[in-house]
Amino acid sequence: MMNNYIDLVNKNLEKYMEIVYPEDLFKSMRYTVLLPGKRLRPVMCLETCRMLKGDIEDAMPTACAIEMLHAQTLIHDDLPCMDNDDFRRGKPSNHKVFGEAVAVLAGDALLTFAPQIIVKYSTNLDSSTILRVLSEYFNFAGAYGVIAGQVVDIESEHKNIRDNSVLDFIHTHKTSDLFKLSVRTGAIIAGADDNDLDKMTQFAQQFGLAFQIADDILDEISTFEELGKTTGKDKTSEKLTYVSLYGMDSAKCKLACLLDECYDKIQESQVFAEIINGIKKRTGLL
Amino acid sequence: MMNNYIDLVNKNLEKYMEIVYPEDLFKSMRYTVLLPGKRLRPVMCLETCRMLKGDIEDAMPTACAIEMLHAQTLIHDDLPCMDNDDFRRGKPSNHKVFGEAVAVLAGDALLTFAPQIIVKYSTNLDSSTILRVLSEYFNFAGAYGVIAGQVVDIESEHKNIRDNSVLDFIHTHKTSDLFKLSVRTGAIIAGADDNDLDKMTQFAQQFGLAFQIADDILDEISTFEELGKTTGKDKTSEKLTYVSLYGMDSAKCKLACLLDECYDKIQESQVFAEIINGIKKRTGLL
Repeated sequence: MMNNYIDLVNKNLEKYMEIVYPEDLFKSMRYTVLLPGKRLRPVMCLETCRMLKGDIEDAMPTACAIEMLHAQTLIHDDLPCMDNDDFRRGKPSNHKVFGEAVAVLAGDALLTFAPQIIVKYSTNLDSSTILRVLSEYFNFAGAYGVIAGQVVDIESEHKNIRDNSVLDFIHTHKTSDLFKLSVRTGAIIAGADDNDLDKMTQFAQQFGLAFQIADDILDEISTFEELGKTTGKDKTSEKLTYVSLYGMDSAKCKLACLLDECYDKIQESQVFAEIINGIKKRTGLL
Repeated sequence: MMNNYIDLVNKNLEKYMEIVYPEDLFKSMRYTVLLPGKRLRPVMCLETCRMLKGDIEDAMPTACAIEMLHAQTLIHDDLPCMDNDDFRRGKPSNHKVFGEAVAVLAGDALLTFAPQIIVKYSTNLDSSTILRVLSEYFNFAGAYGVIAGQVVDIESEHKNIRDNSVLDFIHTHKTSDLFKLSVRTGAIIAGADDNDLDKMTQFAQQFGLAFQIADDILDEISTFEELGKTTGKDKTSEKLTYVSLYGMDSAKCKLACLLDECYDKIQESQVFAEIINGIKKRTGLL
């Protein structure tokens, strides 16, 4: 079921990203977007839409736009002036293949390309629904969302900050916000009521926290081969993480609790259960 | 008249860009957007709207969004991995003040913030007009517009390319596209017919070429004090420009011709005449 979604998303990402002149730009954009991955965010958008009785075809442009936005954050995150990472998903980072200048511009291009896909291909949605989806997109993708989280994350490095509220802010915006965007747009496209919208938003908030804690745990316990990217970097850069603030045991305990709470909220969905179990397996909880 | 527009634009840019947490991010975004400038693109958007009997208040969010987008291109252009420029409009570049990481993220944030302003504040426009404005915005701002021009521009450096069609592509996309976006959205918001839309698009295409040739001429003949940024860089980086391809005399001649043709197209507008004469004065044509 999960794999069906992933195939659908990959097929549509390919379709939306035709290579035209200047080819280097489009190849660079496609390179990171199409790296093999779990496509968690688009899958969660589509599955929320299905759960709430919507047509997943209507949510496809938005689901794919969110994956493009996610890829954009990876391209710019890996730049030498940011995390300076040479590998991503087991392959050389975008700037190692296309050079820094093109990588910066490919990331910039994706930030405009993603909402353009929503406007261009959401042909079954009426204008006011498209504008509602775009408002959600802009809110969670920009300075009030993901980027706010990234800025606070960067500023917390090498400062030995031990502040729970700062950590919450980083997790909520850097990680939960894209999951919230995914489920909220899926729900809106399905025509969900405010109750369902709230329920899914709370789910995504907790799922995001769990996902980030799992990411921090994996950064410490995994090898390069397992993750496809440089590991152990949080420690070196003295990053504020759940593991650095509370220790590994407490992090694992918190993760298990959060994932169980998430599971209770969406037990009716086999796909969400699969996603939750996947995280449990990778972090040694199952 | 021109100055009235500039004041209005500055007032609204201030209003739209309230500083919230994390303050560094919003300060960095505001820093480059609010640097004193001629606000050519928003002024052209507003004046086109007025000429075609629209209400300039309706065009204000779009006009300001285009200025934010323009500022974003300046922030990322000045980065060490791009043009590596330490000054902009006589002040230290964004990354010299806020560091490279925040400058990258502030540019990223503006790319989402700009269209968000259009959706959030265009309260007098109906949904389908807003979507039409956004479609124009995405088309000219992204991989099919400005960024395509930037990529080809970068790739032309140090390669001694002498190709007129490549130069045309760079000028059209890197420079004309934002002017086209400005006048087209101004016209659409005014409810213009296809005839007027075509006329203004042609005007903006030629104006953009003239503007870029003037920029290339000024890069060679001006001092740092006059331009507020490093000059003579096109030569050092062996950039493909109208001056490098045809020589200074031919560039000035072409510029004069283009500006006269532009003037013929919009003689009824005092503001556009003022803009054209300003370029003539700065390049020694008047």
